[in-house]
Amino acid sequence: MPHPTETPPSKEELKTQIKRLNSKAGQLKMDLHDLAEGLPTDFENLMALASETYNIYAKLNTLKQQLKQLEQES
Amino acid sequence: MPHPTETPPSKEELKTQIKRLNSKAGQLKMDLHDLAEGLPTDFENLMALASETYNIYAKLNTLKQQLKQLEQES
Repeated sequence: MPHPTETPPSKEELKTQIKRLNSKAGQLKMDLHDLAEGLPTDFENLMALASETYNIYAKLNTLKQQLKQLEQES
Repeated sequence: MPHPTETPPSKEELKTQIKRLNSKAGQLKMDLHDLAEGLPTDFENLMALASETYNIYAKLNTLKQQLKQLEQES
């Protein structure tokens, strides 16, 4: 079975992904805010939490740009 | 001129270093707190600020342990 060429996500799929990531991003944002406020406590966890937070916001940024493009095309 | 063997810092020197780093750490803590609160704005700056903050708190942690040791010995 030949590998189906990946069809680009639809607007609805992008919106669902964004919604799901938004709630996770909101949680990480609060965790990072609390860790920063509590420093020096838990400073050892800072880099892991910061990179997890960064990755989600970078992914969200990409998805939002894709959605914007689709909406401009239609 | 032979390289002078590094004499370990005195209690006073450690206290001065800790004091200086503490004020810088306090500033970075607020910057990180503000960036977390403002996400997704400036998410691109998160990793640089997080690593600068982590490095200072790790250094402070080391200096505090050295001071504690010196105080226990005397």
